[in-house]
Amino acid sequence: MTQVDFLTWQISIQQRIESALDACLPPTTCHPTRLHQAMRYVTLEGGKRVRPLLCHAAGEIFSAPLVALDQMSCAVEIIHVYSLVHDDLPAMDNDVLRRGKPTCHVKYDEATALLVGDALQSLAFHVAAQPLASVPAETQVAMLGLLANAAGSRGMAGGQAIDLESTGKSLEIVELEFMHLQKTGQLIQAATLLGAHVGGANAQQVQNLVRFANRIGLLFQVVDDILDAEASTEVLGKTAGKDAASNKPTYLTLLGAKQAHALAAQLCEEAHNALLPFGDAAVRLHQLTDYIVARKS
Amino acid sequence: MTQVDFLTWQISIQQRIESALDACLPPTTCHPTRLHQAMRYVTLEGGKRVRPLLCHAAGEIFSAPLVALDQMSCAVEIIHVYSLVHDDLPAMDNDVLRRGKPTCHVKYDEATALLVGDALQSLAFHVAAQPLASVPAETQVAMLGLLANAAGSRGMAGGQAIDLESTGKSLEIVELEFMHLQKTGQLIQAATLLGAHVGGANAQQVQNLVRFANRIGLLFQVVDDILDAEASTEVLGKTAGKDAASNKPTYLTLLGAKQAHALAAQLCEEAHNALLPFGDAAVRLHQLTDYIVARKS
Repeated sequence: MTQVDFLTWQISIQQRIESALDACLPPTTCHPTRLHQAMRYVTLEGGKRVRPLLCHAAGEIFSAPLVALDQMSCAVEIIHVYSLVHDDLPAMDNDVLRRGKPTCHVKYDEATALLVGDALQSLAFHVAAQPLASVPAETQVAMLGLLANAAGSRGMAGGQAIDLESTGKSLEIVELEFMHLQKTGQLIQAATLLGAHVGGANAQQVQNLVRFANRIGLLFQVVDDILDAEASTEVLGKTAGKDAASNKPTYLTLLGAKQAHALAAQLCEEAHNALLPFGDAAVRLHQLTDYIVARKS
Repeated sequence: MTQVDFLTWQISIQQRIESALDACLPPTTCHPTRLHQAMRYVTLEGGKRVRPLLCHAAGEIFSAPLVALDQMSCAVEIIHVYSLVHDDLPAMDNDVLRRGKPTCHVKYDEATALLVGDALQSLAFHVAAQPLASVPAETQVAMLGLLANAAGSRGMAGGQAIDLESTGKSLEIVELEFMHLQKTGQLIQAATLLGAHVGGANAQQVQNLVRFANRIGLLFQVVDDILDAEASTEVLGKTAGKDAASNKPTYLTLLGAKQAHALAAQLCEEAHNALLPFGDAAVRLHQLTDYIVARKS
């Protein structure tokens, strides 16, 4: 499979997800209209859709039905989008730019941004709980539990709390790793495992994918830290140089640029190795790993 | 059944829920400890637990297993608690007192209160997705969808958005009713229906309970409006007289005190009537309706 082939696949999944998200979101004619407009503003036409791509790529190992993968991909992506809206609020990171557009509380107002995040989180679980013909109901209940756990205080929200507490403090590399495994890694893992569960993966296969996702979660963050320091705001579509400005510990501040790049290369290799048991069936996850390393924004 | 008997039942359910909530919440020794402390601070030792009481009372019509009712009751109550934490934030109602204690952002800080609410919402779905031996998995998936819908933009969060938009405006009584059916009514209905589903209610029985819950949701709000105007902050455990101070339309401002009391009596009667098909099995829901009318806080 060539790189061109991967780009074609990536774009086709992104298009599927865009239209699936559009179908999930209440129409702007539905009351309360302003809230529904704002929910669409933050969710549609933006984002690399990394989590949906992981979900689809993992599901394709097991020839999972695409419509079911779309559904679970949307649930994970909506959780991710809600977290961005709340992270950008003045009480949190206080950011004004996201995906090249004014953040939700800037475009609308703080109360609306709060409710947009809250309503999106509910919507994510609503989407995940819609009938899923190809998957046993017991599996679907377990998937809902997995998603909720990844989003909550022992996952993404917990990681965000640790992140806030650590601003201005010096962290050990293991503490930084723990924070990112919660803040970013858990939802990335959930995206991957949901794809696998839709495809009926067995326990051993799930275990292999946990190892893969664990590396990918950290890799994603290391690259994020590098981009925050090395890319421009224009290319990123969000404020660059924020970590240094807010005195946040990052892989770059802890390791320096050279070692951070070396760590990214090492994590990429470990992620590739975790895919070996799946052979050629994991080609999309393999390519996606390369894409995460090479991304410019 | 006597009133004394009802009080005994009420206290026993409240005690079950308190210990079930305690078991749901991550321990304070679990990292991030401050977030988990704050989640416990807002959830435990407080609240009338009206939604869990409704869930149990509805479940008892169908002799539903108590442990399963505890689980779904906790899920609904945790959604309710998260909504209070976010509603009290400065960007929303900006309140300092809740259940007789400083609100979460006052006791901790705004960022923590935001994350507490977010993490509690995830926790609610995590709890609802735990194995539920007595209920078919298909039913459990449907219950998760029902809860998510009641919490989201077409339910509680949507009602809150309408509430914010309507502050300082004059509303028609039908608009006020629509707002409250979303903001309060949907979650109250979910609590009732989840209890019924745990007990295996059929479609006709569910329909009867929808009619009941619809009346109870409005009744609850009419009594809330009356108490806000007529009770003291000390008795309420939250700031009294807030509606008038913030120029919010209420049943009292729209109808006057006398007619608001008359509406409460009428809704109470309609709720009782909706229970007639269930006969004596609905005694707890009948008594709970009286309790909602008679409550002083």
